[in-house]
Amino acid sequence: MTQNTAEKSPVTLLGLGAMGTALARTWLDAGHPLTVWNRTPSRADALVSEGAKAADGAAAAVAASSLVIVCLLDDASVGAALDGVDLTGKDLVNLTTTTPAQARARAAWAAERGARYLDGGIMAVPPMVGVPEAGGYVFYSGSRELFELHQEALAVPVGTVYVGEDAGFAALHDVALLSAMYGMFGGVAHAFALIRREDIDPSAFAPLLSGWIAAMAGPSVLQTAAQLKSGDYTTDVVSNLAMQVAGTPTFERTAAEQGVSPELIQPYFELMRRRLAVGSGEEDLTGVVDLLLK
Amino acid sequence: MTQNTAEKSPVTLLGLGAMGTALARTWLDAGHPLTVWNRTPSRADALVSEGAKAADGAAAAVAASSLVIVCLLDDASVGAALDGVDLTGKDLVNLTTTTPAQARARAAWAAERGARYLDGGIMAVPPMVGVPEAGGYVFYSGSRELFELHQEALAVPVGTVYVGEDAGFAALHDVALLSAMYGMFGGVAHAFALIRREDIDPSAFAPLLSGWIAAMAGPSVLQTAAQLKSGDYTTDVVSNLAMQVAGTPTFERTAAEQGVSPELIQPYFELMRRRLAVGSGEEDLTGVVDLLLK
Repeated sequence: MTQNTAEKSPVTLLGLGAMGTALARTWLDAGHPLTVWNRTPSRADALVSEGAKAADGAAAAVAASSLVIVCLLDDASVGAALDGVDLTGKDLVNLTTTTPAQARARAAWAAERGARYLDGGIMAVPPMVGVPEAGGYVFYSGSRELFELHQEALAVPVGTVYVGEDAGFAALHDVALLSAMYGMFGGVAHAFALIRREDIDPSAFAPLLSGWIAAMAGPSVLQTAAQLKSGDYTTDVVSNLAMQVAGTPTFERTAAEQGVSPELIQPYFELMRRRLAVGSGEEDLTGVVDLLLK
Repeated sequence: MTQNTAEKSPVTLLGLGAMGTALARTWLDAGHPLTVWNRTPSRADALVSEGAKAADGAAAAVAASSLVIVCLLDDASVGAALDGVDLTGKDLVNLTTTTPAQARARAAWAAERGARYLDGGIMAVPPMVGVPEAGGYVFYSGSRELFELHQEALAVPVGTVYVGEDAGFAALHDVALLSAMYGMFGGVAHAFALIRREDIDPSAFAPLLSGWIAAMAGPSVLQTAAQLKSGDYTTDVVSNLAMQVAGTPTFERTAAEQGVSPELIQPYFELMRRRLAVGSGEEDLTGVVDLLLK
């Protein structure tokens, strides 16, 4: 134990999957006394050799620190791991991926057990943890007191972004950003499929594709946000809805020419057409958002 | 006419929509003698007051310059505008949005008429034209000779990226990148729908959303390209296919909780599940590309 360690607050971590293990290492490296627990105990061996203490069970792990961080497979695993464990006075930080409603229910569950609760949604893959320049971060929501008290320890693995007292907001931000990413992945898969049978080097094509997406994301997302706030969806900056709908057959014909299923681009085109049918052709594409709401 | 103008090569432009008009202005500003034609002649009035010459018809416009640039509504408009026009010895640059097959057919059509042919796909919206820092560009493919001879004039409105002798490649690149953009737009629409009824400021959410997409696009697209080239889709860097499929119910449940139709994210999840059923759970998501090919 270094002199530095004595000054840092103890941390307990439940769950040593790829993400948990990456998180654990950063607290060890930063000198936080670290107690770990995992359902399969052998996952702790490497960390113990690096200075972590492996607890015999979840209850013992929770007893070791006031700050208890949980990074398990899903919400059911959290309930199972902490069933019957005394949480009185604990500061529980749940980094397990859940829905917003699950996070809110878990916050109420923690409150009943006398614990403060903070929910987190991790916007990083394990290789980004402990690498500040990789830009990863965790969305946090729930107890602001807990967040402020433990901010130093929480900021060790990756950056922190606090998004409100509603315990569901971290999960909601997390799911929203990852959903958008899967939408982008779908567009990217379609683009690669279009060139797959042509004499085009995917690695020469890739920077053009990613550069275009990155360049378009900023302005279009900011514009959509501004239009949702104002309620005025009209545009004179980019091609309007009518012009863009008129362009969709070229995308569908190209897919057919290249032998590519349009299943990943057609649902959005269908919504553009539905919006054109009920809205104004002078609009931007923002009206699609409202069509998704039930 | 300034002294500068006399040194610059003449340009003919057919088509004065929003894009054509933006292009025209940059050639005028750069001192290129410019002849324009549009089906509705009044669209030329402002440009004429700025120094352009308006031709009485497409044939007269084509006769005025060896470099003839066409920016019309669609491929049928190109055929209609140039029907019966003498193209012998002309350098025809077609910026009209088409499918790759239409571009290839138009290249053959131009060759039959004694013209060199270059096809272009514009990766910019009109406000980006003439603004180098906006990063817009045109994909060109077809006659390399034509491209090299006229590169200076072609580079006036926006940057140029030559992607091969195949006249269809510019359109293919154009459609592929725009298709990917619509996929991204679909993901973004879903994300905004998820927060639409919550007390979350869309303008505070927007930079988080666009930042995440921009940060994820680069690594994921480069990785997909490398895997498509190597044929090895396995990953130990990011969550593998099995883990990501296991996570999809959280996205679907969150959509249900928030009252949002999952129609823009489910098609990609379905393909992930189909790939998991026929491929390896240790893979990245690249196998989805192959499932799109018929």
